[in-house]
Amino acid sequence: MIELTLIGIGTGNPGHVTLQAIQAMRAADLVLIPLKGADKADLAGLRRHICRSHLQGCATRIVEFDLPVRDADDPDYRRGVNLWHDRIAEAWQTAITAHLPEASGRVALLVWGDPSLYDSSLRIAERLATRLAVTTRVIPGITAIQALCAAHAIPLNLVAEPVQITTGRRLADHGWPEGADTVVVMLDGGCAFQTLPPEGIRIWWGAFLGMAEEITCAGPLADAGPRIIGMRQTARARHGWIMDIYLMRRG
Amino acid sequence: MIELTLIGIGTGNPGHVTLQAIQAMRAADLVLIPLKGADKADLAGLRRHICRSHLQGCATRIVEFDLPVRDADDPDYRRGVNLWHDRIAEAWQTAITAHLPEASGRVALLVWGDPSLYDSSLRIAERLATRLAVTTRVIPGITAIQALCAAHAIPLNLVAEPVQITTGRRLADHGWPEGADTVVVMLDGGCAFQTLPPEGIRIWWGAFLGMAEEITCAGPLADAGPRIIGMRQTARARHGWIMDIYLMRRG
Ligand SMILES: C[S@@+](CC[C@H](N)C(=O)[O-])C[C@H]1O[C@@H](n2cnc3c(N)ncnc32)[C@H](O)[C@@H]1O
Ligand SMILES: C[S@@+](CC[C@H](N)C(=O)[O-])C[C@H]1O[C@@H](n2cnc3c(N)ncnc32)[C@H](O)[C@@H]1O
Repeated sequence: MIELTLIGIGTGNPGHVTLQAIQAMRAADLVLIPLKGADKADLAGLRRHICRSHLQGCATRIVEFDLPVRDADDPDYRRGVNLWHDRIAEAWQTAITAHLPEASGRVALLVWGDPSLYDSSLRIAERLATRLAVTTRVIPGITAIQALCAAHAIPLNLVAEPVQITTGRRLADHGWPEGADTVVVMLDGGCAFQTLPPEGIRIWWGAFLGMAEEITCAGPLADAGPRIIGMRQTARARHGWIMDIYLMRRG
Repeated sequence: MIELTLIGIGTGNPGHVTLQAIQAMRAADLVLIPLKGADKADLAGLRRHICRSHLQGCATRIVEFDLPVRDADDPDYRRGVNLWHDRIAEAWQTAITAHLPEASGRVALLVWGDPSLYDSSLRIAERLATRLAVTTRVIPGITAIQALCAAHAIPLNLVAEPVQITTGRRLADHGWPEGADTVVVMLDGGCAFQTLPPEGIRIWWGAFLGMAEEITCAGPLADAGPRIIGMRQTARARHGWIMDIYLMRRG
């Protein structure tokens, strides 16, 4: 039997790691580190750094493996993602059975942020469970939402008011979501806030939150929006990639 | 100048504490622990436990103070809360100036969960800043939302779909919020899910998440709802208080 633990490690600050996460890593026989290609090398780097810092004197083995690449040409997006998740589950299985040939032991996977938030590890673990006898456990981690609010020292919600978490794609397609005056936008490849009429909206933006490269910007959307677009372009050009998130409030 | 650090400590599991939180506590001259009355004694107890575990060999002083009680009889709810926050800011000020008479140094406040989520510490810090020269910094912590998803090993969101975070009061008053098929409900004193027609809705519920008393229940709302109401009553009677949260998905 494989005990799989999905461990949230926070969003790039090694200090985001919790005591529970360290304990789970140290209790593992195997820590899997997926490699995602050159642009995301920093992400594997953080995982390696966390392992080096906390696995001293442990028998835990660290195993890196290449993450399959998604077929972006598949005209059916959902099918493309499904096939991709299948291939990742297969890659996990290969790495696990190579190092735990009895298919028994504790496997840890370090997940960016928290495993529950816009992350596919839990879904891939379900697929793995159709291939191997496996139980899945989750250790929560600091999310990008919290890193954003902490960087700006702002509350997520107004007093007793709701909050909507959504994606750049949805914001661009559907506009400001119904039923909440606070919106958090993740997975936005193209500054979808530009599609909104900016009047009465404030924005708090951050990229590389928790990392050495961290940058932030905040203000009324009409002023801050164009500045964010500029900062984002510059940072993306400099680092070769970017991860950003923002919170907007209206009224 | 006072440097105030609001430190998220997670939702009751000492293992939720992050390395960054420990570092900030150890760097503080003063850690303030608010006492909230008998029913919430466990919460002060966790804070004391965390201090004892991580402040050994530090010069940091631990200062407990009584949190003023909100005047629940004030017919104007918002005014009642505002006055209460003023009185808490005053209590912080009194505790700080008693122990840092020069009004200079590092003060840490341990906040349940994450300081950004349905918590008034940031708003009280703003009030404190009108009384003392103070800068405020935030260290993120594990939220009850993540503790819930981790306990059930479920994702917060469906793939690329939005999530609404709301309160029991709003759910009872407005029904299922527009624009999201996943809803997280916090601050619910009365099982507001009962006000929804249960068809097509699944619920994942948890109380005392991360604590020794942790209990969970999940299933279709029609079946699980009545079970949750029973479990909640029993647990509340046994412990004298309860903290619970749930996620619902429809469709
Ligand atoms: C695939 S999701 C993973 C989220 C992660 N599981 C979490 O809990 O934050 C990636 C998105 O998270 C946000 N994100 C993650 N890390 C970030 C960081 N360090 N700074 C800014 N945004 C970040 C961005 O919106 C990015 O598009
Ligand atoms: C005043 S809010 C504080 C939330 C906290 N700042 C956080 O980040 O989770 C209190 C609400 O959080 C939820 N909550 C906090 N701790 C919890 C726990 N250990 N188990 C279940 N729910 C919890 C409940 O919905 C409760 O009504």
